[in-house]
Amino acid sequence: MSAYLAFDFGGTRSRAALFDRDMRLIRRAETLSRVGDGPDIVLERLVNLGKSLNIPEDELVSIGIAAPGPLDTAAGVIIKAETLPGWSNVPLAETLSRAFAGLPAYIENDANLGALAEYHLGAGQGADPMIYLTISTGIGGGAIINGELFSGFGGHAIEPGHMRFTLPTGGIRRWEELASGTALGDLARQQLRAGASPSVLRDIEAIDGRAVGDAALAGDEFALDCLRQAGMWLGLGLVNLLHLFNPAAVVLGGSVMKLGDLILDPARKAIEEHVLFEGFLPESLLRPARFGDDVCLVGAALHARHKL
Amino acid sequence: MSAYLAFDFGGTRSRAALFDRDMRLIRRAETLSRVGDGPDIVLERLVNLGKSLNIPEDELVSIGIAAPGPLDTAAGVIIKAETLPGWSNVPLAETLSRAFAGLPAYIENDANLGALAEYHLGAGQGADPMIYLTISTGIGGGAIINGELFSGFGGHAIEPGHMRFTLPTGGIRRWEELASGTALGDLARQQLRAGASPSVLRDIEAIDGRAVGDAALAGDEFALDCLRQAGMWLGLGLVNLLHLFNPAAVVLGGSVMKLGDLILDPARKAIEEHVLFEGFLPESLLRPARFGDDVCLVGAALHARHKL
Repeated sequence: MSAYLAFDFGGTRSRAALFDRDMRLIRRAETLSRVGDGPDIVLERLVNLGKSLNIPEDELVSIGIAAPGPLDTAAGVIIKAETLPGWSNVPLAETLSRAFAGLPAYIENDANLGALAEYHLGAGQGADPMIYLTISTGIGGGAIINGELFSGFGGHAIEPGHMRFTLPTGGIRRWEELASGTALGDLARQQLRAGASPSVLRDIEAIDGRAVGDAALAGDEFALDCLRQAGMWLGLGLVNLLHLFNPAAVVLGGSVMKLGDLILDPARKAIEEHVLFEGFLPESLLRPARFGDDVCLVGAALHARHKL
Repeated sequence: MSAYLAFDFGGTRSRAALFDRDMRLIRRAETLSRVGDGPDIVLERLVNLGKSLNIPEDELVSIGIAAPGPLDTAAGVIIKAETLPGWSNVPLAETLSRAFAGLPAYIENDANLGALAEYHLGAGQGADPMIYLTISTGIGGGAIINGELFSGFGGHAIEPGHMRFTLPTGGIRRWEELASGTALGDLARQQLRAGASPSVLRDIEAIDGRAVGDAALAGDEFALDCLRQAGMWLGLGLVNLLHLFNPAAVVLGGSVMKLGDLILDPARKAIEEHVLFEGFLPESLLRPARFGDDVCLVGAALHARHKL
C-alpha cells in the first residue's frame, strides 16, 4: 500500500499528514511554526512533526511540501518569504528528503497546491482554466490550465495578491492590501479614526479582519459598509482575472470567504458593472472552496503523487 | 505546393495575403473596410479582396482570418466588436469558406494571432509563457502557454486592455484608456485645457496620440511628460501581467511602441518599483515586436496551417 507524506509549512502554523494512494487522509499533526527560532530549529521541528505521524517507512513513496513563496521548486528551496523574515535560500525539500530515507521530496507554492487540490478533488473539478484564490491575511492564488498547474517561466505564477491598483486617495496598493482580511481591519480602523460612525467595533481594542467580519455578521452597519468596500475591490481584481484568464471557474477559499454573500454580493456587483461581456461569465463561475485548512496538505499529497 | 489564404479584418482597414507552406508572403492586398456599409457589403468586399490575389485554387489548403473580438471561434462568428457598431453574430468564416471552394476557414482574435506570429516567427521565439501586446488605438493581447495559443474557457482570453484601474482623481478606467495612443491624446487635451504648460501641441487642432508622440520625439517637454504618465500606467499593467503569468517574454507591438524608450523607460521604472522580486524579470523580458502591420496576416496564415 503506497503512502504519501504531505507538509504544509506556513509562517504561523505547520501541518503534516499521511495520505494513502487514493488521497484519503490517514493521520494528521499540527504545530506552531515559531519561525523566529531560525531555519535550522524550525526545519528540525518540521521533521519531528512528520515523524510523529508514525510513518510506515516501507510504504512511503514520496513527499510533497506546500510552502510560502517565492520558491525555487526545481532546487527545492525557499528563496525568501514575507512571512519568514530573515530566511533566505532554505533547502526545505532536501532536508525533508534526508530525514525520510532519501525519498523524493517536492516543494510547491502553497496556493498553487490549493489550486491542485480544488481542481482534482474539490470545487473546481472539470473547470479549465480554473483559478483558485485564498483570501485571508493576504491573497494567494493558483491557476490550472489544460489540466496542469500553471507556474510560469520561473515557477512564480500566479501571484494575484500582487496585482496593483491606484487609490482614489492617491498611492498604489496591492490587491491583497485592499480586499483581504488584513485590508478589512485596516479599512475599519482608518474609517473609525476619521469619522463618527457608530459601531460595535468602537469597543474593541485591536480591530482585525475577524472582528470586522463578526460585527458584520451581527448586523453592524459600519462593518457591513467596510465589507462592501473590500468587496468592491475583490470584484475589481476578479474582473482582471476574468479578462486575462477567461476561467471556467474561480474557486474561493480562505477565512474571508466565511463571510459569504456579505462580501461576495458587492464583488458580484463590480463584476457585472465592469465585465466586457457575458462570454466571461460562464455558469457557476464563482464557487466556494471545498477544502478548508487542509487544502494545501491535500494539494501537497497530490503533487507528491503526480511528480513521481 | 500548398498555399494559405490569410485575412486581417479590421474596423478601419482589411488586408489579405497569400502565404506558401513555409509562411513566406507571396502576394498581399489591402482596402478600407468601410464597416458602416453593413456586414453583407463589407463581407463581399472582403471576398473580392481575397480574389484579387489571383489565388491558385488547386494549391489553396485553408483560410485563416484575424478579426476583432469577441468571437465564437468554434462557429466562426463575430459576436460583436467595439470597432464594428451594429454588427452582431456575423458568420465570417462560413462566408469566406463558401467563396473559396468550401475550404476550411478558421477565425481567431487578431491580437491572439499576433501572439502566434511573434511566438513562431518573431521576437517571442523560444519564450514560454509569452505575452504579446499591441498598443495603438487600444491595447490588445495574446498569450502563448506550453507552446499553444491560450484562449481560456470561452475563447476570450486574453483581454489585457480591459484590466481595470482606479484613478487618483476617482473613477474606474480600462488599462487601454490609460496607456494606449488614444490615452496619450486624451491626456494631452485634458492637461492643456487645465493648465498653462507651453507646448507645440497648443497649435494643433485635433490632438491625437500620434501628434503627442511626434511632439515628444521633437523634444516638447509637455508631450514628454504625457508619455511619462502613460508610460507609468503601461508599467503598472505590465506588473500585473508579470505577477499573473510570470512570462519569459512580453513582446510589444503597435504604433505606440514606435516611441521606444520615451514610453518604455517610465514603464520600466514602474516595473522596477512594483515587481515582487527579480524572479519575475527574466533576461530580455520586454522585446519589440518583429512584425509590423502584417503581424495578424502572418498569424492568420500560421493558424490556418496549424488548425488543419
